[in-house]
Amino acid sequence: MISQFGRLRKEDVLIEALPFIQQFEGKTFVIKYGGAVMEHEVLKSMVAQDVTLLRKIGINIVVVHGGGKEITSYSQKLNLETKFVNGQRYTDKETLSVVQMVLAGLINKDIVRRINIHGGRAVGVSGIDAGLVNVKKYDKEDLGLVGEVVDVNSSFVKNLLDNGYLPVIAPIGVDENGTIYNVNADIAAGAIAGALDAAKLVYMTDIDGVRANDKLISHLTEREAEELIENGTISGGMIPKVESALEALDAGVQKVHIVDGRIQHALLLEIFTKEGVGTEIVAE
Amino acid sequence: MISQFGRLRKEDVLIEALPFIQQFEGKTFVIKYGGAVMEHEVLKSMVAQDVTLLRKIGINIVVVHGGGKEITSYSQKLNLETKFVNGQRYTDKETLSVVQMVLAGLINKDIVRRINIHGGRAVGVSGIDAGLVNVKKYDKEDLGLVGEVVDVNSSFVKNLLDNGYLPVIAPIGVDENGTIYNVNADIAAGAIAGALDAAKLVYMTDIDGVRANDKLISHLTEREAEELIENGTISGGMIPKVESALEALDAGVQKVHIVDGRIQHALLLEIFTKEGVGTEIVAE
Amino acid sequence: MISQFGRLRKEDVLIEALPFIQQFEGKTFVIKYGGAVMEHEVLKSMVAQDVTLLRKIGINIVVVHGGGKEITSYSQKLNLETKFVNGQRYTDKETLSVVQMVLAGLINKDIVRRINIHGGRAVGVSGIDAGLVNVKKYDKEDLGLVGEVVDVNSSFVKNLLDNGYLPVIAPIGVDENGTIYNVNADIAAGAIAGALDAAKLVYMTDIDGVRANDKLISHLTEREAEELIENGTISGGMIPKVESALEALDAGVQKVHIVDGRIQHALLLEIFTKEGVGTEIVAE
Amino acid sequence: MISQFGRLRKEDVLIEALPFIQQFEGKTFVIKYGGAVMEHEVLKSMVAQDVTLLRKIGINIVVVHGGGKEITSYSQKLNLETKFVNGQRYTDKETLSVVQMVLAGLINKDIVRRINIHGGRAVGVSGIDAGLVNVKKYDKEDLGLVGEVVDVNSSFVKNLLDNGYLPVIAPIGVDENGTIYNVNADIAAGAIAGALDAAKLVYMTDIDGVRANDKLISHLTEREAEELIENGTISGGMIPKVESALEALDAGVQKVHIVDGRIQHALLLEIFTKEGVGTEIVAE
Amino acid sequence: MISQFGRLRKEDVLIEALPFIQQFEGKTFVIKYGGAVMEHEVLKSMVAQDVTLLRKIGINIVVVHGGGKEITSYSQKLNLETKFVNGQRYTDKETLSVVQMVLAGLINKDIVRRINIHGGRAVGVSGIDAGLVNVKKYDKEDLGLVGEVVDVNSSFVKNLLDNGYLPVIAPIGVDENGTIYNVNADIAAGAIAGALDAAKLVYMTDIDGVRANDKLISHLTEREAEELIENGTISGGMIPKVESALEALDAGVQKVHIVDGRIQHALLLEIFTKEGVGTEIVAE
Amino acid sequence: MISQFGRLRKEDVLIEALPFIQQFEGKTFVIKYGGAVMEHEVLKSMVAQDVTLLRKIGINIVVVHGGGKEITSYSQKLNLETKFVNGQRYTDKETLSVVQMVLAGLINKDIVRRINIHGGRAVGVSGIDAGLVNVKKYDKEDLGLVGEVVDVNSSFVKNLLDNGYLPVIAPIGVDENGTIYNVNADIAAGAIAGALDAAKLVYMTDIDGVRANDKLISHLTEREAEELIENGTISGGMIPKVESALEALDAGVQKVHIVDGRIQHALLLEIFTKEGVGTEIVAE
Repeated sequence: MISQFGRLRKEDVLIEALPFIQQFEGKTFVIKYGGAVMEHEVLKSMVAQDVTLLRKIGINIVVVHGGGKEITSYSQKLNLETKFVNGQRYTDKETLSVVQMVLAGLINKDIVRRINIHGGRAVGVSGIDAGLVNVKKYDKEDLGLVGEVVDVNSSFVKNLLDNGYLPVIAPIGVDENGTIYNVNADIAAGAIAGALDAAKLVYMTDIDGVRANDKLISHLTEREAEELIENGTISGGMIPKVESALEALDAGVQKVHIVDGRIQHALLLEIFTKEGVGTEIVAE
Repeated sequence: MISQFGRLRKEDVLIEALPFIQQFEGKTFVIKYGGAVMEHEVLKSMVAQDVTLLRKIGINIVVVHGGGKEITSYSQKLNLETKFVNGQRYTDKETLSVVQMVLAGLINKDIVRRINIHGGRAVGVSGIDAGLVNVKKYDKEDLGLVGEVVDVNSSFVKNLLDNGYLPVIAPIGVDENGTIYNVNADIAAGAIAGALDAAKLVYMTDIDGVRANDKLISHLTEREAEELIENGTISGGMIPKVESALEALDAGVQKVHIVDGRIQHALLLEIFTKEGVGTEIVAE
Repeated sequence: MISQFGRLRKEDVLIEALPFIQQFEGKTFVIKYGGAVMEHEVLKSMVAQDVTLLRKIGINIVVVHGGGKEITSYSQKLNLETKFVNGQRYTDKETLSVVQMVLAGLINKDIVRRINIHGGRAVGVSGIDAGLVNVKKYDKEDLGLVGEVVDVNSSFVKNLLDNGYLPVIAPIGVDENGTIYNVNADIAAGAIAGALDAAKLVYMTDIDGVRANDKLISHLTEREAEELIENGTISGGMIPKVESALEALDAGVQKVHIVDGRIQHALLLEIFTKEGVGTEIVAE
Repeated sequence: MISQFGRLRKEDVLIEALPFIQQFEGKTFVIKYGGAVMEHEVLKSMVAQDVTLLRKIGINIVVVHGGGKEITSYSQKLNLETKFVNGQRYTDKETLSVVQMVLAGLINKDIVRRINIHGGRAVGVSGIDAGLVNVKKYDKEDLGLVGEVVDVNSSFVKNLLDNGYLPVIAPIGVDENGTIYNVNADIAAGAIAGALDAAKLVYMTDIDGVRANDKLISHLTEREAEELIENGTISGGMIPKVESALEALDAGVQKVHIVDGRIQHALLLEIFTKEGVGTEIVAE
Repeated sequence: MISQFGRLRKEDVLIEALPFIQQFEGKTFVIKYGGAVMEHEVLKSMVAQDVTLLRKIGINIVVVHGGGKEITSYSQKLNLETKFVNGQRYTDKETLSVVQMVLAGLINKDIVRRINIHGGRAVGVSGIDAGLVNVKKYDKEDLGLVGEVVDVNSSFVKNLLDNGYLPVIAPIGVDENGTIYNVNADIAAGAIAGALDAAKLVYMTDIDGVRANDKLISHLTEREAEELIENGTISGGMIPKVESALEALDAGVQKVHIVDGRIQHALLLEIFTKEGVGTEIVAE
Repeated sequence: MISQFGRLRKEDVLIEALPFIQQFEGKTFVIKYGGAVMEHEVLKSMVAQDVTLLRKIGINIVVVHGGGKEITSYSQKLNLETKFVNGQRYTDKETLSVVQMVLAGLINKDIVRRINIHGGRAVGVSGIDAGLVNVKKYDKEDLGLVGEVVDVNSSFVKNLLDNGYLPVIAPIGVDENGTIYNVNADIAAGAIAGALDAAKLVYMTDIDGVRANDKLISHLTEREAEELIENGTISGGMIPKVESALEALDAGVQKVHIVDGRIQHALLLEIFTKEGVGTEIVAE
């Protein structure tokens, strides 16, 4: 029996992936892109590889992306005022056009392009297409044309998945009169994951996970997460993520992961290693 | 037998549509939007109604749209220089971003939104999605990131049609390295119609058709059209349209129509009346 | 923007049909033909056009027809005695042959022929074919070979609809021993509509609808209809229609219409106008 | 090993059928009924059993029937003159109604009824339904409304077969204007068999097969059959059968059988015994 | 009408089969082979014919076979000790190899070969293939590698049936670690029949059925069978058969038959005659 | 951007697999097992992992196995004489039983079991099942019951692949009378690969490839391989492999690989590295 030291490593790694493939094939994962992972050339390329690889081994992948920084940047170039109300972008009609252009035109197509370089058969759509994300005007405060998700038309996404495509979704929605609205990407991802009964919803962010007392928490139940919000341990921008996570779990998603998109191939590490990275929140 | 004068008109009109429905059901029409039909609110709404109606009566409708004016307008707002070489937009990297944003983000989604108000199940995609429009760099002169269509992946469009969706396509393409290119919308529409073996390719423009000696020509064979180009009767912006028409006819399209988009419901008039509107060019 | 007075009317009418198409596509309508609509050449032709048009815009159409006058006429030509018991035809063996011949041979094929002229893909069958209408001998009084519907084999009709055919059904049934029976067409239509969970069951008759105090009633609930039968407002030949209507509503039909077949294109008016014609009876 | 004399016969017979089942399953047989087999109660019942059995063991069965005697009988009852031109019924408008009524209404449904008693899932249609048999006016002599088969819409018949139904077809046709015509049943059966690429076309007649010098010929090639027509050995009513047979063979049918319908279970004997009954004509 | 004495018998027998075909087509029968039927050349050939015929007339047939005698014979040839514990074979590792070889290699393929001679499209598999029979170690006494059925993966068997194949199954199972176990064939047949919701489970044995007071009992209800076990009327090797029968009935099988495989064509007699052979046990 | 040295290696390896996955997904590979890879516990387990992994990433895998050593071993235990004629096993009736038992019963099920541990959905069949490998008696010399492949029924294998199963095939065949024959595994693998239009046929052997002048040849065209046979460079047991390879290439296989099964994960190295291992022979 011949042994070739240097080369064997490679095959061993591939083989170690087998039990994870066996566990997840045929399942649906919704991946929310955001933050650093959308800005660094190397990370963008790696995430494209990662989702393609996951699709190839039989996992149904749906990508939902944000794009806040680019929206702000183009708004400035167009001399539009950027206004935030309690951390949410106030979206007037002109800003909505920028949102639409940057999300559905620029970022969406760039992600699609990168995935397709690796043979990933990505198709970029928005919540407007096929009436995918139905919303109503957000009414808890006046944010202009910001919508609250009412309903997700999952049959269109399932149709794309069944035909072997990898949907990449820009978080814009449409109300029953055909008016277009800006939608929070975290919330859209949660609603889509819920509508698809996803096995996993993964938030790729710029932090390493949920933290308490300066320590990363790797595992949380729904109840524990609720407590951490109540007692203030979870705060700031982490709140909408965790709340979307909790809603997604309620809607049937099995597990939500908050992972650090700044780690190279964080998605693969999360899927193909036992320890994972970041924080997972599981249904009770 | 009761006769109700005012009301009967309505039913008669519907019934007169029957032979046209019978003739075209199951066929594929590619509609190229451009010019006035993309600018006037009333016309935009009417075209949305028209394509929805055509889809509902069993015609497979594919929409390809342009967006030159909006691209120029946003380029100016962003202080980008607009440069034309022999009538074609020179597309540098920054302009390409504007092209992508305006076509795939703004106009595409607005058309989709309008069609879906009427129940049309439109899905907006670009030539990047699912590798739909494969191009190479246009090399007859230096136009920057302008692509020449090499191949259309018709299986993705057919898949959408077979599942009851109405594809709306932004004319951007991708080369084999994943680089994005601007593509002439007339040419893209012709290539897509050819790849789909469309029964009709309809160019909606701002003129009333092909003219010779100040008279509208309502019918042309391929050969006649070629002669009119050679002897200079067809000139200017009409040339790429007629040339795309001729290429589409070569690729298997049965008939190409050049109709005046400024006429209200020009599409319905073209389909549902014997005389039609504008100019038709037919395969030999 | 060009406006062409005479011609624009046409397109407007077509477009006005859109919301109705949107509302009804994919739904099933059962149309019961009878009376004048089966005798006047012009009306026969119009109904054929109407059902074809409805089928083309995506409504599943099933036609059930009667044929009393022709049966009586052929019975007389063949010197058979015509006998009615409480308004129902007494059907002996020889009369049953006439019923079978006139309904399944003459009228059924004539309706099919007329629909197919317009491309309607009609297929004429009877309750005998594929065991479509299962009956037992009517036993409330002796009407000879008159059957009471026991069961409708809807899978055969659904199969025809799913394959794009328009079933035209002659109301004859068969019992478990294979004996053929005459079946009241109104009742057959109701049973078939119920078995198909039809959205609409339309009775085309020779009256303008249900009347009370010499006024046409355009809308009735189930309960109101029952009361009108009890208090004698509804009487005579209208009773079996309304009773079949009520049974069909019980079986899951959403709405039953009684419309005046003498009005030209009454079916289109009923479907494509808000006010409709005749009387509608709706489930509670 | 136990042996039970009386009972074992039964199983042996069933088992002897196996090689024939193996040979024919998935194949299509077109059976033309006519003559005695349509008049005697016992024979009618047996043929119904036979075709049901053949269908159950996996053979696609299509029945085409005639009805000349009944047409003549009803014409007489209705005081219509019966006129024959060179052995073919002259069909005026009133006679056509009788043809339609007797074939599509009376005989067709009676055959369907009998087959369905045995679970055969028969569906009775005519050449009018779904535009099944397209004809033009027969123009070699004036026979009134007699049609010549132009085209058979086999997709409708295949659709019925694929869904497990047993089509029973009345030989009436329709021209491109929707006019109904009487069609010779032998010729219709041949055309239908050709359109379906049938493995067998079986004519059930009142004679024991093709005879020469008073002896039954059990096997003929196409060429031999042509010679026997030319030299006058085949004559009279046998000519249209053999000519239809030859046309069917040309159209792709593999074998045509002319069997004596007066023999009980003649169909089963033909299929399940090596020697068969009657005459077979085979493609060269 | 001609009558041919000798030949007509044949057709009559075939026709007598029709009501049974009608009753059972589309149903699933699981046939357990064992005993004499696996040893005598003539019987083996007959059973192959029988199951093929049943498959051809539309019954879904699944064969499960034993092979005890051959296992013992090969064990002896290989000088392995044969040990029985309370009537069940103690299966050490070497014996398991013999079990596997004889059942899956020798007997399974011989049955497949015989069925395929008659066109039966048999496919031989074992409980190991596609994880068909999941077991755990039998733990009521130490029998070595003998497994108890935990679960049957019916989707694989249904897939074969739906594609027109006739599965022949060797009773070996596999536990969750991939260890192979010997499984009692009667019990395996019962579990498979239950998982398939079979209409019939037929045990072909070497006795003529269940007997009480020296008389064959032709019909038993579940409760009666339980009583006969309790009061000792049913004893010995009949107990596991009847117990498997009762479990199969609990799992949804409609009827269990215990028939004498020594009777020629016992299966056909059981299916195609009213009286049947042997004992049937029916669900309450 | 965080970098975690030790862990990143893993993800990089997975990602390096992407272009190979992209290249091969949807293709069919036939793997012939033999020699050392069937004897060493560790290698057996690794090959099971490898084929499972290849199946999971979308390659259609078919395994064909040999088993010569085990056949010889069991023949000896059963005191059967082992006779070779020109290197091929003389197979008398008793030896054939051993062949059948060892290949289809012992080795086939062991391979299936090992693959299924990793979730590979393997199904073990032989050339007898569904008439998969049709043979006639080998007649170039008298080898007893040794068959020459006449025809492969690829529809059964395709059916298994299409339903997500991984076929493992024992090389036994059946002639038109149902007689079973021993078949050379290399030749069977070649014939099966040809019938499936496989992209690759991989022979896993005990040598490191084809050698000339003591050097491994990594690439050969068909013509070069033929020359090496003619000039004696290729000799001995390598001849049937290379000849089967050439026949498979003639039948449409794109590439044949001869790889050293003694290398751990040789299959993965062959598929996922550019250099590969062993010798490849390509179609001209």
